[in-house]
Amino acid sequence: MPKKSKSRKSKKAWSGRFQKAMAKSAEEFTSSTHYDVRLYKQDIVQSIAYAQTLLKAHVISAKEAKRIIKGLEAILKGMERGKVKLDPALEDVHMNIESMLISKIGDVGKKLHSGRSRNDQVSTDLRMYLKFEATEIIMLIKKMQTVLLDLAEQHIKVIMPGYTHLQRAQPVLLSHHLMAYFEMLERDKARFISAGAAADVMPLGSGALAGNDFKIDRELLAKELGFSCISANSMDAVSDRDFVIDFIAACAVLMMHLSRFSEEIVLWSTWEFDFIELSDKFATGSSIMPQKKNPDIAEIVRGKTGRVYGHLQGLLTTMKGLPLAYNRDMQEDKEAVFDVVDTVRTVLDVFGEMLASINFNAEQMGRSAKKGYLTATDLASYLVRRNVPFREAHKIVGEIVAYCEESNMELEYLSLKQLKQFSDKFSYDATRILSAQSSVNSKDVPGGTAPNRVKDAIKHARKHLLHDKA
Amino acid sequence: MPKKSKSRKSKKAWSGRFQKAMAKSAEEFTSSTHYDVRLYKQDIVQSIAYAQTLLKAHVISAKEAKRIIKGLEAILKGMERGKVKLDPALEDVHMNIESMLISKIGDVGKKLHSGRSRNDQVSTDLRMYLKFEATEIIMLIKKMQTVLLDLAEQHIKVIMPGYTHLQRAQPVLLSHHLMAYFEMLERDKARFISAGAAADVMPLGSGALAGNDFKIDRELLAKELGFSCISANSMDAVSDRDFVIDFIAACAVLMMHLSRFSEEIVLWSTWEFDFIELSDKFATGSSIMPQKKNPDIAEIVRGKTGRVYGHLQGLLTTMKGLPLAYNRDMQEDKEAVFDVVDTVRTVLDVFGEMLASINFNAEQMGRSAKKGYLTATDLASYLVRRNVPFREAHKIVGEIVAYCEESNMELEYLSLKQLKQFSDKFSYDATRILSAQSSVNSKDVPGGTAPNRVKDAIKHARKHLLHDKA
Amino acid sequence: MPKKSKSRKSKKAWSGRFQKAMAKSAEEFTSSTHYDVRLYKQDIVQSIAYAQTLLKAHVISAKEAKRIIKGLEAILKGMERGKVKLDPALEDVHMNIESMLISKIGDVGKKLHSGRSRNDQVSTDLRMYLKFEATEIIMLIKKMQTVLLDLAEQHIKVIMPGYTHLQRAQPVLLSHHLMAYFEMLERDKARFISAGAAADVMPLGSGALAGNDFKIDRELLAKELGFSCISANSMDAVSDRDFVIDFIAACAVLMMHLSRFSEEIVLWSTWEFDFIELSDKFATGSSIMPQKKNPDIAEIVRGKTGRVYGHLQGLLTTMKGLPLAYNRDMQEDKEAVFDVVDTVRTVLDVFGEMLASINFNAEQMGRSAKKGYLTATDLASYLVRRNVPFREAHKIVGEIVAYCEESNMELEYLSLKQLKQFSDKFSYDATRILSAQSSVNSKDVPGGTAPNRVKDAIKHARKHLLHDKA
Amino acid sequence: MPKKSKSRKSKKAWSGRFQKAMAKSAEEFTSSTHYDVRLYKQDIVQSIAYAQTLLKAHVISAKEAKRIIKGLEAILKGMERGKVKLDPALEDVHMNIESMLISKIGDVGKKLHSGRSRNDQVSTDLRMYLKFEATEIIMLIKKMQTVLLDLAEQHIKVIMPGYTHLQRAQPVLLSHHLMAYFEMLERDKARFISAGAAADVMPLGSGALAGNDFKIDRELLAKELGFSCISANSMDAVSDRDFVIDFIAACAVLMMHLSRFSEEIVLWSTWEFDFIELSDKFATGSSIMPQKKNPDIAEIVRGKTGRVYGHLQGLLTTMKGLPLAYNRDMQEDKEAVFDVVDTVRTVLDVFGEMLASINFNAEQMGRSAKKGYLTATDLASYLVRRNVPFREAHKIVGEIVAYCEESNMELEYLSLKQLKQFSDKFSYDATRILSAQSSVNSKDVPGGTAPNRVKDAIKHARKHLLHDKA
Repeated sequence: MPKKSKSRKSKKAWSGRFQKAMAKSAEEFTSSTHYDVRLYKQDIVQSIAYAQTLLKAHVISAKEAKRIIKGLEAILKGMERGKVKLDPALEDVHMNIESMLISKIGDVGKKLHSGRSRNDQVSTDLRMYLKFEATEIIMLIKKMQTVLLDLAEQHIKVIMPGYTHLQRAQPVLLSHHLMAYFEMLERDKARFISAGAAADVMPLGSGALAGNDFKIDRELLAKELGFSCISANSMDAVSDRDFVIDFIAACAVLMMHLSRFSEEIVLWSTWEFDFIELSDKFATGSSIMPQKKNPDIAEIVRGKTGRVYGHLQGLLTTMKGLPLAYNRDMQEDKEAVFDVVDTVRTVLDVFGEMLASINFNAEQMGRSAKKGYLTATDLASYLVRRNVPFREAHKIVGEIVAYCEESNMELEYLSLKQLKQFSDKFSYDATRILSAQSSVNSKDVPGGTAPNRVKDAIKHARKHLLHDKA
Repeated sequence: MPKKSKSRKSKKAWSGRFQKAMAKSAEEFTSSTHYDVRLYKQDIVQSIAYAQTLLKAHVISAKEAKRIIKGLEAILKGMERGKVKLDPALEDVHMNIESMLISKIGDVGKKLHSGRSRNDQVSTDLRMYLKFEATEIIMLIKKMQTVLLDLAEQHIKVIMPGYTHLQRAQPVLLSHHLMAYFEMLERDKARFISAGAAADVMPLGSGALAGNDFKIDRELLAKELGFSCISANSMDAVSDRDFVIDFIAACAVLMMHLSRFSEEIVLWSTWEFDFIELSDKFATGSSIMPQKKNPDIAEIVRGKTGRVYGHLQGLLTTMKGLPLAYNRDMQEDKEAVFDVVDTVRTVLDVFGEMLASINFNAEQMGRSAKKGYLTATDLASYLVRRNVPFREAHKIVGEIVAYCEESNMELEYLSLKQLKQFSDKFSYDATRILSAQSSVNSKDVPGGTAPNRVKDAIKHARKHLLHDKA
Repeated sequence: MPKKSKSRKSKKAWSGRFQKAMAKSAEEFTSSTHYDVRLYKQDIVQSIAYAQTLLKAHVISAKEAKRIIKGLEAILKGMERGKVKLDPALEDVHMNIESMLISKIGDVGKKLHSGRSRNDQVSTDLRMYLKFEATEIIMLIKKMQTVLLDLAEQHIKVIMPGYTHLQRAQPVLLSHHLMAYFEMLERDKARFISAGAAADVMPLGSGALAGNDFKIDRELLAKELGFSCISANSMDAVSDRDFVIDFIAACAVLMMHLSRFSEEIVLWSTWEFDFIELSDKFATGSSIMPQKKNPDIAEIVRGKTGRVYGHLQGLLTTMKGLPLAYNRDMQEDKEAVFDVVDTVRTVLDVFGEMLASINFNAEQMGRSAKKGYLTATDLASYLVRRNVPFREAHKIVGEIVAYCEESNMELEYLSLKQLKQFSDKFSYDATRILSAQSSVNSKDVPGGTAPNRVKDAIKHARKHLLHDKA
Repeated sequence: MPKKSKSRKSKKAWSGRFQKAMAKSAEEFTSSTHYDVRLYKQDIVQSIAYAQTLLKAHVISAKEAKRIIKGLEAILKGMERGKVKLDPALEDVHMNIESMLISKIGDVGKKLHSGRSRNDQVSTDLRMYLKFEATEIIMLIKKMQTVLLDLAEQHIKVIMPGYTHLQRAQPVLLSHHLMAYFEMLERDKARFISAGAAADVMPLGSGALAGNDFKIDRELLAKELGFSCISANSMDAVSDRDFVIDFIAACAVLMMHLSRFSEEIVLWSTWEFDFIELSDKFATGSSIMPQKKNPDIAEIVRGKTGRVYGHLQGLLTTMKGLPLAYNRDMQEDKEAVFDVVDTVRTVLDVFGEMLASINFNAEQMGRSAKKGYLTATDLASYLVRRNVPFREAHKIVGEIVAYCEESNMELEYLSLKQLKQFSDKFSYDATRILSAQSSVNSKDVPGGTAPNRVKDAIKHARKHLLHDKA
């Protein structure tokens, strides 16, 4: 006669074969309720669909299905009202919900887990969550793109120095500069679309690792849960976290872009550049220095880039070298991705607002574009058009610049006579091309900073943004 | 009268405005010839197309274009024959080729760089290179997938223990296990297709950062260079390395997958598992222990995962917080991506060969699948079919397992009488379901390990692989 | 006449020069109260010492100092009782405490911040915190070392296979294997001692970045706060986070060690190795598979390694390329280091407990050490002692192993006659050295696995641990 | 009668038990000769000492030892002359040297490896190498510190704006700013001293993992090889790579510091800051823009920070989850650490040279320190000295700044009358404290920017540098 184990008193759903209860410290260490509670909605929605599938597979009766579904709906409402407290001893949100269900509707509730393992259940929840968050983040990106388009339109006439190596290089339109970020965000959206698609594969029905043994209709289940397709291999399905890594990688690149923009916000708001003034609403002061106005938002965004990179590296490391199929290490995916989602959403939100409230100092930008020989390349191109080989033209203009530096003079103040000392190809029209405006106008190719090209780019972007329903 | 600067004697193409020659140490530090020589072919092909574009834009004459193109073709041939030595003092492969061209065809060669900057030139080369490498890697992945399909077909009857937490969980087909890796590689291919598409945007015509000032036809140029589209913003174009990061991220996830497979190769070839024997051709011995046969290939692959992760993190870090547009920091992208390409290509190659030569020990796998109560879940499902709520069934079977453990007995040796002591729902057919084969058969859902399902999966995969011309 | 700005109503301590209040979203984004509340104790202790210093520097009177200190002590008590709620709008714990002080003792409280900036204040708090945590972690490491010593003593007679490449290599004592982790932890302790020393430099008195302008006695202040020395450069002091990185790096290496140990716990508790049984108190079951007993603690520890690595990379990234002196990006240090401290402390705690409750299966270990030709090297050494050059001896024994493999025989069952077929140097005593025990005994060098050496090592370690009061 | 295996013809030292030769691809994949050739010197020196130890342990005769040592010395000479080509099929530099030895002195050479494994051999080589490199890097750091001290002395009178959040904060001495980097480098040196000490433990005598079986005198061996101590546990010894991680971590923090300095070099050389001019010897031009002079050295240093971070992350990842003892994954340590050493040495070298050749624009720095209300805090401190509570004083000055901003006026041009409108505590001496010089003078605490304090710091640093013989 088999003896009854002590552990039957355990709260654990799996305690049948165990003789001793889990140590308190181990229980706390392994419990995930404090963060996976976030998935309660996905979990209940999934369970409702799963109950219907069990019904269709004749594992439960119509009456049982109805009671289970009603019970789950009641729990969902309770949780939405915030009236439910999870018990960490029940390990995770999934076991908590099952336990609530059983205490609400009795033994029928014990039928829900038939053929389902937490291995496929958790992955399904997380995929539902990330599909949703990918869409949310895309919407936030679009919002920021709209801010950029608005700014680009408003400032279409503003010329500023374009930089390479942070040295003044050539004049560009401020709008052109802003539209560069529009393009980065465009690629970010594409990455989140891919990440959403990566998540859009239903693992449910993979069981613990070998598959479901109740011949459930996985295709139908996927349809009801809004998944585009089902996973093709149960062992892969329960041990795959590629979709989380894809998502975090998309976030990492987005943060990289915003770190670059942040760097520019910080630079532009220095006393030295003086290209922008931040609104008081998006700047902070100093606890000791009364005069300070600091671009903290941009700095924190730049700083948080490290945080998101860290999560990417963290999860890649965690997954390294794990044998098939599910291993508990993977539990680390959730806190990482939740923190990344929170970070990215908040950052997009507040950075966009800050951006919209910036006051651009067009005058100072224009002034800066005039100092630093920014049209030297235009002068070389002038010579090229007069049949001087470019490499020769480059040298000639290099010497002109050296001469100007010594004489502390800007290119546009050179007389034709002075120019001619360097090359007899210069003629009366040479000095005309030395203005920033002329330089900008001449970059008349698709993607160039010529005003008509930038206007086209903005128009095209606006249209694209409207019709894009990703 | 402007004085001639000393620096005119410098080898540098840009020395016009400089008074002093670069320090030797600085020259060596900034030079990239020792690695970017790899891009010579892309660079020359690009230059030929660019010369044609300059012709169409009336910057050079037909005769000039012809001489430039002929010169470039000669240089290409020379480099392919390995007869060319680059001069590090000329900074990079691009300036070396320009310099060779000039010394070969004279002053006409100095016209080639008109309107082009290394900023758009280098990015175009690198994109051409990565487009190509993405395709190459996809082909290598397919090759490994073919090995997996062959192995899966050959061993379709082999049953082995499936693991979770590295504990024996449920019986699965070896073929099913192998096909899990097929699926991972399937996702990897998708990632390289995306990475290839990300690279497939032509930045050429963006100039230094503001655009090209010779009204060249960028669309036509893209067509000739085999690019699907052109970049939409010149500032973004020259400062964008997303495509490199996307590529390395795809490699990182691929390596993660292979690190998992490697871990299993290492485990399976232990004395303890004894599931496989590596061919002598893909194993190594010990310098001191005469009996050793080590799975070094798998270990090194697992180890190199860190290397590829490191490059991903490295480049993300490098790009963090850089203001627009081009900054020299970005030069670090090339050594990283070259090393990643070499690593991944070699790894795919040798890992695939090693895989194909493995000797699977089917007998030992089968034996292992019989020990460890792997069909306990099937017993629970049996009870569920007899209307015992699953959670109750789980507990009952848990107690049966505890009983077996104490009695040191496997499930399949339990008599009906013994079973009935735990639940009266057990009847004569209960013991039939306790074999590994029966367990495997019952996972009869898409993606499950039932033999018919696995055969379908293999057939489908084979067909897909044939028709997939990514 | 200057107009009164609206912002005087702002809660911010620095609102004097601002016209508009901070946006709610920006306020939330920049606030750190939800995590830096952890530093309240350090902050108050610091402020009390700072008040005394201000008194000595004649910035405040004795009466004022007394009131400030009394006020701070009352706040400390309140916070310790958990009766205080921080206001996020006040930015951080430091401003909250100052604000409480002012509302408690009036205008005198407004004198406390004289000459002090949050830049030196925060860094001082964090250093005090990490000095403390370094000590705490060292104590936890010692606790785990004690567990290891106890186990090593208990199992001093147990022989097991030593592995390289996870292939059986040579017999070793289980105690020797366990003592390898003792050594790793020994190095970890050294790293935390270094990290503690790195934190043990007082930045207070550096002001915002230029130094304190009230001629305070920094040396005395350091003494009162228990710092060993003061920072030597105020700009470095407020922008230095090396000490945080050092601390997290120490944690990363510790986690790497524990990930290796965890891997072994996972391996050893497989059905295949069967070297240990985990206590039910430190194992978990499966929601679906009734027979499972999983080594979750070890898996989660292994998984959390990625998390700690991620924080290291995150902070390194955040600090990259920041100009002097303080930048707000650095605020990201705290959440990272708090999470790392929590992770490492919990991991050390629960991993140690799990370790202590492990049941080692000595019999199975011994059995395993007998299969796999683990004494082949001993046989080669035998030949070396008979003047066969080692490389020759290695080859001979390699052939003997090949012969045994073919004949499916262990080395110790070879007859002298059989041995002699491979080399005539073998004589009657050759077979004696082929037992695991003999092999172990022969590794009789310091650090070797010979029982007397291992006993010495344990004894020495025990003594060292007792007298070590790091 | 045992059959002779084909593999006896293999070049591998371990081929005795193998039937088939290694595949070419596997051979190439596992070979490390192309990079570990770097360790040839350490390897030979080690072998010479090991031969002497074998002699003392009576494993070889005096005559044999002499021949071995002479042979090794000849090989060393040959390699130093660059006359030796390694054979990749021999796996690594160690087997190559053994093979050369055997072909040079015959069978006696086959005795050298007695009791030694590559596991302890490689680790010993690498430790010898890193001990040396730690010292080399410390010397390069000192060289850069000397440059900093020279610059700090030369420019002791130059006042510049100190920044926080890249906003002008308070005036500081340029020398003080430079000395902040001196301090960072001081900590870096300490880290390399630690890293050197971590490497300074001899693993030789640990054999493959269990210890040496010829009772060699490890202590004596360590003494001869210049190690301070011997490893305490053979299993730990062969699987420990902490010392490599410590070394790379030290490099990562050093690079972080230099990335910050680089960022400042880039900023300071912009048209906007105009604080410095780089020497033509350490700047580059543009292939297209004739006027450009770019701070490429600083940019590349900043960029290479990612590279070194990547290696740190890479090796940490590689070591994660490896069971004891040696695993081949660890082979990845060498290329990583070699690249890091090369990077750091070159960076220190060229960055230091660049630094020394910088032309500081003192006038522009001074001008900048006058604009931006940098002495606002001094004004608040003035009020504090007149018994206005600091928080009140901060508000008052904040309003004064707001007033000045509106009136577009600097603080120092405020009349006493104007000041008095904000507080009647202002008196005739208030305006005196508003100069940058006065502000700097007032930071008269240890570590502060007051000229006497900075001079003391320089003097102390110079002295310390001289007497420091790390």
